[in-house]
Amino acid sequence: MKIIELKESVTVSNDRDADKLRQKMLKNGVCLVNIMSSPGAGKTTLLSKTVSDLKNDLTVAVIEADIASDVDAVKFEDLGVKSIQAHTDGMCHMDAGMTERALDEMGYSNTDLIFLENVGNLICPAEFDTGANLNVMITSVPEGDDKPLKYPLMFSTSDALVITKIDTLPYFTFDTEKCIERVRKLNPNIKIFPVSAKTGEGMNKWEEYLRQNLNK
Amino acid sequence: MKIIELKESVTVSNDRDADKLRQKMLKNGVCLVNIMSSPGAGKTTLLSKTVSDLKNDLTVAVIEADIASDVDAVKFEDLGVKSIQAHTDGMCHMDAGMTERALDEMGYSNTDLIFLENVGNLICPAEFDTGANLNVMITSVPEGDDKPLKYPLMFSTSDALVITKIDTLPYFTFDTEKCIERVRKLNPNIKIFPVSAKTGEGMNKWEEYLRQNLNK
Repeated sequence: MKIIELKESVTVSNDRDADKLRQKMLKNGVCLVNIMSSPGAGKTTLLSKTVSDLKNDLTVAVIEADIASDVDAVKFEDLGVKSIQAHTDGMCHMDAGMTERALDEMGYSNTDLIFLENVGNLICPAEFDTGANLNVMITSVPEGDDKPLKYPLMFSTSDALVITKIDTLPYFTFDTEKCIERVRKLNPNIKIFPVSAKTGEGMNKWEEYLRQNLNK
Repeated sequence: MKIIELKESVTVSNDRDADKLRQKMLKNGVCLVNIMSSPGAGKTTLLSKTVSDLKNDLTVAVIEADIASDVDAVKFEDLGVKSIQAHTDGMCHMDAGMTERALDEMGYSNTDLIFLENVGNLICPAEFDTGANLNVMITSVPEGDDKPLKYPLMFSTSDALVITKIDTLPYFTFDTEKCIERVRKLNPNIKIFPVSAKTGEGMNKWEEYLRQNLNK
């Protein structure tokens, strides 16, 4: 598994670069999915389960973006899927140029689905278009149902929301209905998937959504 | 309860401003404690319990920094302590200038202890000195024990770490020893307090630490 050191792209035209990258992925039949959440919401656990479920009939790869460490990329290598670890040089988000470099280093030909696991952060990644075809955010039960009130941009700009760790609902005061109501007020068209990667509950609908959005 | 709208300070000399503010707080007998964590780690719940325990014999106040909403500041007002809601205009952290403005708007005379609840973010707040006398970070059991590997700067620059939600240890694969070992490798002198604000476990030691650091 490769580790690359990225720096923020020098270009100021991130939106244009992102659009170009999105078109390039479409042309290559790749669906690039940008996964965003706060640290510890369960991005890697959700992706490990998703990749395990899909890898038999789809070609899947994972870009792991982190400030430091390679613990997550190693997990995907162990699952037998292509992965690359991108270090962001302290940066709190990925931009389109950084994403393109990671894609080029990893290779993406004959790949159906590539997950970009963005840096754990509910704020900055919402402000930078990575060029992904789908933007997905995760919020977890232990974080509480008030996150849409405090981090509205992330909830407004995502195509889908995965509510993770629903197996722990009995141990936290998390009102799923209230959370969904708050999210829909910001983003009426967002797709919402409550799941537990641990028990498998809800994973089918989430994976079906990904299959429907493949660029084939 | 007041809400103020802040913008990033125009000054480039944040470190100098932070040192000045720190001295000013010392001179006024105020201990300013900067509380940092990822979203949903339990900053507000920890502070609510801490403030309830300390407010009988100390004068305590809370600055709530968020991108949006005032849900947290209202909670402290309900507890009968002085609080102010600072909106950061989309900014992912507080700097010294923003903190000083919030302090001036709220007032801090005859106050023993002021908590600055920073924006929920494990990355950017570690890069900006707010002028606090103590920097405290929180990591919660549901986030997992690998956070020190992924967000090393925050763990390196904090004076103390509070490990929250320890009542949920039976439901997560969180190795407390391993987490502490990883933290100590980055920051050998950091004070560590495992607590549950829900059951009260460990709160005494954390509150004793705050009392020892008062500027009186």
